Amino acid sequence: MSTTPRIMQGFPPPAARRPTLENWDLPPYNRWSFQNVRRVLPTAPVSRGAGPVDALPAENLDLSDVTFVAMDNSTRTLERFLAETYTDGFIVVHRGRIVTELYFNDMTPSTEHLSQSVAKSLVSTVCGILIHDGLLDPNAPLTRYVPELARSGYGDATLNHVLDMRSGVRFNETYGDPDADITLFDTVTGWRPPRDGVPQSVYDYLLTLPKEREHGGDFKYRSVETDVIGWVMERATDRHLCDLVSRHVWSRIGAGHEAYFTVDRAGTALADGGFNATLRDYARFGLLQLNDGRALGQQIVPRDWVRACRVGDPGIFGEPYSILTPGGAYSKQWWIRDLEKGIIQARGIFGQLIWIDPPAEMVVVKLSSWPEYLMPEFSYNTYRAIEAVARELGSKG
Amino acid sequence: MSTTPRIMQGFPPPAARRPTLENWDLPPYNRWSFQNVRRVLPTAPVSRGAGPVDALPAENLDLSDVTFVAMDNSTRTLERFLAETYTDGFIVVHRGRIVTELYFNDMTPSTEHLSQSVAKSLVSTVCGILIHDGLLDPNAPLTRYVPELARSGYGDATLNHVLDMRSGVRFNETYGDPDADITLFDTVTGWRPPRDGVPQSVYDYLLTLPKEREHGGDFKYRSVETDVIGWVMERATDRHLCDLVSRHVWSRIGAGHEAYFTVDRAGTALADGGFNATLRDYARFGLLQLNDGRALGQQIVPRDWVRACRVGDPGIFGEPYSILTPGGAYSKQWWIRDLEKGIIQARGIFGQLIWIDPPAEMVVVKLSSWPEYLMPEFSYNTYRAIEAVARELGSKG
Repeated sequence: MSTTPRIMQGFPPPAARRPTLENWDLPPYNRWSFQNVRRVLPTAPVSRGAGPVDALPAENLDLSDVTFVAMDNSTRTLERFLAETYTDGFIVVHRGRIVTELYFNDMTPSTEHLSQSVAKSLVSTVCGILIHDGLLDPNAPLTRYVPELARSGYGDATLNHVLDMRSGVRFNETYGDPDADITLFDTVTGWRPPRDGVPQSVYDYLLTLPKEREHGGDFKYRSVETDVIGWVMERATDRHLCDLVSRHVWSRIGAGHEAYFTVDRAGTALADGGFNATLRDYARFGLLQLNDGRALGQQIVPRDWVRACRVGDPGIFGEPYSILTPGGAYSKQWWIRDLEKGIIQARGIFGQLIWIDPPAEMVVVKLSSWPEYLMPEFSYNTYRAIEAVARELGSKG
Repeated sequence: MSTTPRIMQGFPPPAARRPTLENWDLPPYNRWSFQNVRRVLPTAPVSRGAGPVDALPAENLDLSDVTFVAMDNSTRTLERFLAETYTDGFIVVHRGRIVTELYFNDMTPSTEHLSQSVAKSLVSTVCGILIHDGLLDPNAPLTRYVPELARSGYGDATLNHVLDMRSGVRFNETYGDPDADITLFDTVTGWRPPRDGVPQSVYDYLLTLPKEREHGGDFKYRSVETDVIGWVMERATDRHLCDLVSRHVWSRIGAGHEAYFTVDRAGTALADGGFNATLRDYARFGLLQLNDGRALGQQIVPRDWVRACRVGDPGIFGEPYSILTPGGAYSKQWWIRDLEKGIIQARGIFGQLIWIDPPAEMVVVKLSSWPEYLMPEFSYNTYRAIEAVARELGSKG
């Protein structure tokens, strides 16, 4: 990765080193663009408000020599692992202290990095707060909040169905497949240039989705379910998603920086994957989950909601998920890595991860710009590396 | 204007109330978009750094009943004037104190507002610093810094030529004329959708401009001259314009908020008119000029440069400028309103203005979203209103 040609350097950058709307999020351009989404797309800010920054005391430990057995059966150091997995930022918070905070590839503590589907877990957190406040009923039909959805496959689904990605709506999310719905969806969201006959707004597009099975079946990962959640939240509150995230989370966790979402041509924030924030602020969001919904001495998210995100039904965690993550599940827009230990993950394509490990009292965030959407070997090694870090910290604790 | 239909309200907003890339900066959409440029276009941040905010003490005076004689010979109050000229923000700083700070049309103290060609005066300020630091020679040919310009009409022009808009390059800046260069230029800058055969980057476009007269003739207002300045500054320093503005101005004047520029598809900031900042931060920039280049107790801009911006040659201030502004001139990207008093203006279409009045020890900023590019009656009344405010403050002083 160190040999990747430098993207967007020079005034102007050579044409071949300029990402376009056709390729900005793909390699090699994503090495630059994931830290510069605002320079590529329209965006909307998520204010941190005017409150205090949560200081996150640091007690630096050199973990670079921590080793683990990688997928290829070789022994890897953390240092080598981070270098070879296109890492942009890596932070470990243990018992409330930053023990490692590393930046690569020009990233800095004030760089907002795209986190792709990590946004889903953030949106769900706000949703949990709104449910607790009585503004949303998770068992009510979605049409109570967004009547237009009656025209779509979501017509008889509930908020709970989409929170757990168990609606019966058809949406093919095969990344990189030109015929998949997710590829067309990139045109809808503004991540690709507009095309004739394709809706230029997420909400217009959601109305076109049909039903292919009964709601309430097995878990099936579909990004659009999160966008439905966002829509319901906006309609129930008459507030923009950015305002909701700011008001309920970003202004209350001691975030150090304003964050932002990408927006489509109707101004709709991409709830399922358009969020950008600094490494430390992602860690602060992870700590909110680790600490049962508390931040800066206040209960921000209902404890019951946070706990429920660590509990899921492996019986509905069908293939391929159950093979990729034995002992895992999915609950309320969080990946449960280990049901027994309550380890959960917010995950995004191209190597974005927040790892929350309550028994180890640890949050890890890794932001990356992988050369492929999904890289099973990188994921495997990432999880092994983090488990090795947890063991190392535990042995010192 | 209070009857203007609300733009971008609702989830999603009705299609007829959504600005598109074809019309976002035009009425009625500009009432919303000038405060939300980031939601429409790609942008790049201008950091305020981590230094202290210049507090700007407030001593509120009610100036709403200050009157002046308007162009139609009627007597207007300031209050009525502000309401009828599509004002979004209005601030008066007198002897270092905010005496009036008003927001309309949903604008708030933290809203970044597009200031159109006000950017020119900001870019010039940075240029003056770089000249003083010896990084730029105003008399050297532009090709010393940007060799490619040899291919264009700028091949034998100097930095001084473009600073005073006296190059011989042909560029027709008739706003709203579909055949004018400025209209095509909106496609180049990304303010309009891309078109086949039109460069998608400002710098590529500048190379296509021919010469129509000798350099050094009368002043002729052409936005592209500022983009040339930006290019030269970036090449001379190997830094992006946003970095330069941050480093030399925005991080040193006690700005309260990050600002931003719109960027084209090559990441180039629109030096001639893509800048967005809060009302108070524009006032802080105005105070920098009023205070001979000093801010927070430090000399930020060379005093000689600031003073030179108040001195111009009326003999080269040809028509129509000399008719519109008798006793005026243009110097180093500033409009000189009154050569005798040294009153200067940074101005932008659709009603953007920073007014710097040294004898009155006053800075006024008015941010607006007029329904037309240029509105002579609104300009006339604005200047009369500000002069009346200066008299009122002077009589109290």
